[in-house]
Amino acid sequence: MNSKFIVIEGLEGAGKTTARDAVVSELQRHGINDIVFTREPGGTPLAEKLRELIKQGISDEPVTDRAELLMLYAARVQLVENVIKPALARGAWVVGDRHDLSSQAYQGGGRQMDTGLMNSLKQAVLGDFSPDLTLYLDVTPEIGLQRARARGALDRIEQESLNFFTRTRDRYLELAAADARIKTVDATQPLEQVTASLRQVLGQWLQEQQ
Amino acid sequence: MNSKFIVIEGLEGAGKTTARDAVVSELQRHGINDIVFTREPGGTPLAEKLRELIKQGISDEPVTDRAELLMLYAARVQLVENVIKPALARGAWVVGDRHDLSSQAYQGGGRQMDTGLMNSLKQAVLGDFSPDLTLYLDVTPEIGLQRARARGALDRIEQESLNFFTRTRDRYLELAAADARIKTVDATQPLEQVTASLRQVLGQWLQEQQ
Repeated sequence: MNSKFIVIEGLEGAGKTTARDAVVSELQRHGINDIVFTREPGGTPLAEKLRELIKQGISDEPVTDRAELLMLYAARVQLVENVIKPALARGAWVVGDRHDLSSQAYQGGGRQMDTGLMNSLKQAVLGDFSPDLTLYLDVTPEIGLQRARARGALDRIEQESLNFFTRTRDRYLELAAADARIKTVDATQPLEQVTASLRQVLGQWLQEQQ
Repeated sequence: MNSKFIVIEGLEGAGKTTARDAVVSELQRHGINDIVFTREPGGTPLAEKLRELIKQGISDEPVTDRAELLMLYAARVQLVENVIKPALARGAWVVGDRHDLSSQAYQGGGRQMDTGLMNSLKQAVLGDFSPDLTLYLDVTPEIGLQRARARGALDRIEQESLNFFTRTRDRYLELAAADARIKTVDATQPLEQVTASLRQVLGQWLQEQQ
């Protein structure tokens, strides 16, 4: 089987970290052991610097929506060109914690940024590059934020309003419904149930790729 | 006279710093004393962080052309929204060391980036916002780089090839020829001559605005 790029997506507190472990053990069960992990924004020295600026801002300067979006794409192009494409080229599988769908959902949905701008940026930066499979962990913002809060202090984006996260989730669901390569998993279930669903979805997809 | 945004442009070593002093004293001679200085990339805490990343990179990671361009625009939108527009709104004049024309010349000309991408980014980020006057200091790359080298160590962009700077200058000249709001000053002349030309061009423009 050719190497693939699999992305885990979802709101804060959706359970992406636990999902990653489930994805890895399912891949290993299928004999896939050369796996590169990425997270976005981040994953290269420059992209991690940008992540810090995006998540924490700097001094009291307001971060404009446009600057945030441009920094996200700058980080993304560094990660795609310097890490993801080379890994896929040498035959490794790549498992990503977030990718472009996050920008579509958070900036496009949550921040209600112009769809024309979003699409032309995506096209300009990524061209035809996209994940082979996206596992979208669907939770309500209420449940997700409760879990995220239990983890500790919230960053600049996690402090957004409930309406922001509701718009973000709505956009996730809308995009997932329109794209067969995005599989939605109900992440409000108990943890073992989520893990079982994930492994089932991924296992079936891996079968289909053979 | 309404407040204006005046930009000084040109290759490394064109003499932008000296030009700024000449611009300020000419403005003062016309009774304009409330002047805000900006430089690009930079001019806000976040934009200065981005400047550092653009100019020095980080570790040995190659900075892709697209990431460079996106970071430049992220810095620019922060500067425009948080500094330039508020300054103009309160009646101050703004004198900028570089602005969008630099991206058009360096990234569009020097790096030969796609014009469609350049234009859609510019439109998305800046909309109709643009300088009232741009003073373009024209030097050959040979003279400019000689001066820049005499100043000390060259940064990531200053280390580009002579061909890169030749393409950049060609694009500057092309864009200046097509836009009446860009005035070209021969900056290969002796310094006093450049200063005199600048003051003459600016003085005449200020007359015309009244």
